[in-house]
Amino acid sequence: MLKMTVLYGAPTDPSAFEQYYASTHMPLVKKIPGLGRFEQAKVVGTPDGSAPAFYRVFEFWFDDQDHMNRAMGTPEARAAVDDLRNFATGGATVLVSQVD
Amino acid sequence: MLKMTVLYGAPTDPSAFEQYYASTHMPLVKKIPGLGRFEQAKVVGTPDGSAPAFYRVFEFWFDDQDHMNRAMGTPEARAAVDDLRNFATGGATVLVSQVD
Repeated sequence: MLKMTVLYGAPTDPSAFEQYYASTHMPLVKKIPGLGRFEQAKVVGTPDGSAPAFYRVFEFWFDDQDHMNRAMGTPEARAAVDDLRNFATGGATVLVSQVD
Repeated sequence: MLKMTVLYGAPTDPSAFEQYYASTHMPLVKKIPGLGRFEQAKVVGTPDGSAPAFYRVFEFWFDDQDHMNRAMGTPEARAAVDDLRNFATGGATVLVSQVD
């Protein structure tokens, strides 16, 4: 199984980010054909009380590389990725990882 | 639901890291009382082909803050956290997040 992890940096305007993310970005993500399980989470802190390195974590899981390539190769996925520039003012760090 | 995400930076010696992680660190993690679901993943790349910002992703999920506090307050959890210094040569970025 593969997962894609999107780590959003702290946005310049968190309330504008949240509003856009929920009302515009997530609906685009949900249109990606073949999308499987996904999870959204908002960072609330760190164990040692230091400032968190990221603001939000979004992950989706794929059965294998083929599944990921098929889903992420669609125009709907392209639209969701292109949309990042419209609200991810703190940047987005993306990782693809193989689940052990 | 809360999750804790551990993002390991690239270690100086990946094969030593992998060996220690599997044979010593993960057994310590698995001893944490009340540990629920967890997932280990090794970063294999990024969508745009750039160098990944992290080397490994480890996550565990907790029912709520109480559950996390109880589990992470144990001597077993302390031993697992203290063990990071023995192998995480690329550092470890930790996030606590609220699953939407």
